[in-house]
Amino acid sequence: MAEKRYALGIDFGTESGRALLVDIDTGEEVATSVLPYAHGVLDEYLPDGKTKLDPDFALQDPADWLEVLRTTIPDVLNQAGAKAEQVVGIGVDFTSCTILPVDARGEPLSFQEKWRSRPHAWCKLWKHHAAQPEADKINELARKRGESFLARYGGKISSEWAIPKVWQVLNEDEEVFHAADRFIEGGDWIVFELCGKEARSSCMAGYKGMWARDEGFPSPEFLKELDPRLENVIQEKFSTDIKPLGSKAGELTPEGAALCGLVPGIAVAVAIIDAHAAVPAATITEAGKMLMVMGTSTCHMLLSKEKAIVPGMAGVVEDGILPGFFGYEAGQAATGDIFAWFTDNCVPASCEKEAEQAGTNIHKILEERAAKLRPGESGLIALDWWNGNRSILVNADLTGLLLGCTLTTKPEDIYRTLIEATAFGTRKIISAFIEQGIRIDELYACGGLPERNQLLMQIYSDVTGLEIKVAASAQPCALGAAMLGAVAAGKAGGGYDDAGEAAAKMAHVKDVVYRPSSEAHNIYRILYREYELLHDYFGRGENEVMKKLKAMKARTA
Amino acid sequence: MAEKRYALGIDFGTESGRALLVDIDTGEEVATSVLPYAHGVLDEYLPDGKTKLDPDFALQDPADWLEVLRTTIPDVLNQAGAKAEQVVGIGVDFTSCTILPVDARGEPLSFQEKWRSRPHAWCKLWKHHAAQPEADKINELARKRGESFLARYGGKISSEWAIPKVWQVLNEDEEVFHAADRFIEGGDWIVFELCGKEARSSCMAGYKGMWARDEGFPSPEFLKELDPRLENVIQEKFSTDIKPLGSKAGELTPEGAALCGLVPGIAVAVAIIDAHAAVPAATITEAGKMLMVMGTSTCHMLLSKEKAIVPGMAGVVEDGILPGFFGYEAGQAATGDIFAWFTDNCVPASCEKEAEQAGTNIHKILEERAAKLRPGESGLIALDWWNGNRSILVNADLTGLLLGCTLTTKPEDIYRTLIEATAFGTRKIISAFIEQGIRIDELYACGGLPERNQLLMQIYSDVTGLEIKVAASAQPCALGAAMLGAVAAGKAGGGYDDAGEAAAKMAHVKDVVYRPSSEAHNIYRILYREYELLHDYFGRGENEVMKKLKAMKARTA
Repeated sequence: MAEKRYALGIDFGTESGRALLVDIDTGEEVATSVLPYAHGVLDEYLPDGKTKLDPDFALQDPADWLEVLRTTIPDVLNQAGAKAEQVVGIGVDFTSCTILPVDARGEPLSFQEKWRSRPHAWCKLWKHHAAQPEADKINELARKRGESFLARYGGKISSEWAIPKVWQVLNEDEEVFHAADRFIEGGDWIVFELCGKEARSSCMAGYKGMWARDEGFPSPEFLKELDPRLENVIQEKFSTDIKPLGSKAGELTPEGAALCGLVPGIAVAVAIIDAHAAVPAATITEAGKMLMVMGTSTCHMLLSKEKAIVPGMAGVVEDGILPGFFGYEAGQAATGDIFAWFTDNCVPASCEKEAEQAGTNIHKILEERAAKLRPGESGLIALDWWNGNRSILVNADLTGLLLGCTLTTKPEDIYRTLIEATAFGTRKIISAFIEQGIRIDELYACGGLPERNQLLMQIYSDVTGLEIKVAASAQPCALGAAMLGAVAAGKAGGGYDDAGEAAAKMAHVKDVVYRPSSEAHNIYRILYREYELLHDYFGRGENEVMKKLKAMKARTA
Repeated sequence: MAEKRYALGIDFGTESGRALLVDIDTGEEVATSVLPYAHGVLDEYLPDGKTKLDPDFALQDPADWLEVLRTTIPDVLNQAGAKAEQVVGIGVDFTSCTILPVDARGEPLSFQEKWRSRPHAWCKLWKHHAAQPEADKINELARKRGESFLARYGGKISSEWAIPKVWQVLNEDEEVFHAADRFIEGGDWIVFELCGKEARSSCMAGYKGMWARDEGFPSPEFLKELDPRLENVIQEKFSTDIKPLGSKAGELTPEGAALCGLVPGIAVAVAIIDAHAAVPAATITEAGKMLMVMGTSTCHMLLSKEKAIVPGMAGVVEDGILPGFFGYEAGQAATGDIFAWFTDNCVPASCEKEAEQAGTNIHKILEERAAKLRPGESGLIALDWWNGNRSILVNADLTGLLLGCTLTTKPEDIYRTLIEATAFGTRKIISAFIEQGIRIDELYACGGLPERNQLLMQIYSDVTGLEIKVAASAQPCALGAAMLGAVAAGKAGGGYDDAGEAAAKMAHVKDVVYRPSSEAHNIYRILYREYELLHDYFGRGENEVMKKLKAMKARTA
């Protein structure tokens, strides 16, 4: 029997990094190793313990990432009893936009004594939200000028993205801005550390950097009007060498190999955003299959050969998920978070006691009780806007609504209704794509919720009228990264020539498939019409009570 | 010192009856005695234990009421060390419409062996809801014919009222109908037992019997079109000798005196509906002061010299509460019931633990936490329709709504919002009166809620912008009945000549007065505009989602 060949997926999350060693021929996840970041998320002080950070700052220390490479890769090889020579390719997935200033040699400014006590010299984590004023100005000017890039992002640039973050550095610490040779995504920086050259990810540049293959970056005219100092920021502070996903960024250098305990020359893939890596890991390598990454919130991803402007989508990027496709992203701002809010704040002691006696948790008790209800039996309907609405209204000021309460309404009625509301939210997103001519034939799911909650999956199927398959892997981001590592190696290098080939061998879905009941679907079609009516009434300006209440709350708090 | 003079109030509730002995000069409540009805509410079987009742039946045994007279009156005299001679008058308040068939001597048919196993021979309690089909037909025909009585009742006759109940007897047990010499309200029957003649209460006839002093009863033409057998039902089956409240029905007969352990000849007042008796007991004997009887639901009562048609009111009756006034009644179908629903179904174990540790209850914990919030701080608004809307929309198909939820919404936010919503509901009722030219200068409250919940009272004051006084008596219905007993006696008989005189001596309010904060009122004025917008959108047909969901629930349940 020939020796096994492996691909490595390195997954950089918010609190920890992990290595996953995958059998290239079967997709078997042979070994995993997780390392929490020593400095976690820096949101109060720099590691010196003295330098206080402003509100909404969220930073990371790139040294923590290097430690992940140094410890988890040897660990998985060791666990598997594998030799370094058996690894044919490495893929990296990373949170985004997580961006840091580096010098001309690619060294983070935060590594240098001179800059170490300057917050803006550090890496800004994706959830750094302090660049909101910059984002607001970008949106205002882009709307005024009718910039075409706005439509690609559902009409709104997020404060989490690259240009707002870099502009904030310029506004608040101009010296750091000028000291930076360039700003680089965390994922791209890891690739640079591994193979000694920068190969900027089309995924990160597209979804978070306002780049499009056909239209490029925002124009110098736009940037100049924003701030004359920004006129040439793209050329001066970013790499413009953008590589499609699935391509090889380079080969592991001797230094990179020494860091990871691997063999030089291994193929290193262009980096991908963590959630996006789950698409091929869920077996999706063609159009018409939407992936729902379902956790605290839901991220929807979809491939298509067609380019369209879908209202309220989070982004459309050519080569953004897999090469040769337009990658679409949409999202719901809260899913699991709503259910967690409900169990934390609205479930009576009696349910908790029942859960204790049954040796289970409240979610399970509620799921069991709610599963006994038929569609429409609760008499309730909700708008799932507990954290605003991302797609398709792109309005953070919208809030949650529950309608239909009577004196006999039970906790499980409300719980089921909240699940249904998030499913209606997903159906609304699906409809927005279909209305623009983008096909959706099947749903796929991954993440914590589909693992835990079968009722939820069945309701999503009944509401959308679509079959749902669930990714087999419990760590689909790392698996997707490993698959891209195998593709970067190519068949000649012991891997695969494209993602379709890789997925056929390495990606799997679970045996269970959720299929819509036509009876339930027919009732949900009626309820969905009511949802749409409320959605439009409260979401499109006819009744602005949600916005007004939120403003009043902000004034009185 | 002269010997004390007393009035007796006999209060017949749903589960028990009580006697209250009141000092006529001071209003001091000298002694109380309560007797639960031996047969309680009959809603499954007749007392034979064999005769099963249809759904929505609710019957009572008049023998239980006689037992109240027999035991509680001697008991209060005994407790007070009072002589029977010191009692100068008796008043009776009773639930309504609680109606029974009697023979020509006034004996309940249910007392007679021949009829004892026939459900329709028994007294139908106010909450007997099995005559809904009859009520629906009455409403339909009255609307078709444009009957003027409909407007006096906010556009809708209730299935709880006399004509639907009597028609149900005719439809389901014609023999009982024919065997009945007449149908009589429980309160009128007690008065008949005490003084040997029927003096029908203008309050009960007006609010529950579709009678008006100026317009009389529904016409024979209307009744004939409803059912030819009903053409002369008013003349044939009811007394038409209707006496205003505050007048003397008669004097205690020797038989009545023997039953109660009192002296023959004492003045007996015309009976009053229980809630309505609270009006004089709360010191209200003139126009412009609205009483809120606040418990599981809220009943609003108001005196006026003017007659007006107020949309959605429960009734307007001349001499219906006090002689010389139009008595107005309106109502909210759920108040305390909503808060009880909330604490039973939506409050997490953590609150319960906190209450246990503090040796108090959940309501108190929530009240304390909610009291710390400022108006508008919750970011929430609700429609208080958990049990439909009585006034002013008269629509049982409306349901509750909660809007503005976020992931940081806390139980106390929701609790306060539910209180505010019921206060907005009351403000809406007040506005409906004012818009028809009926003055409301001050609010008065009585019942369980004002006793327990100071935050609630303050919010009602802040929302309405009106001062609220709280009745001093914890048993205002019985006190009001006693006051009418004193008025029936007249000054010559040791009592008072009118309700104003009686109230000046016998009725009191608590020292604490709730006064509106202008700051809070200004914020609530803004929130109330939003409430009104939602109220009209969901309540007046623009969006019928509540009705549709309720129908769907009924179909699937």
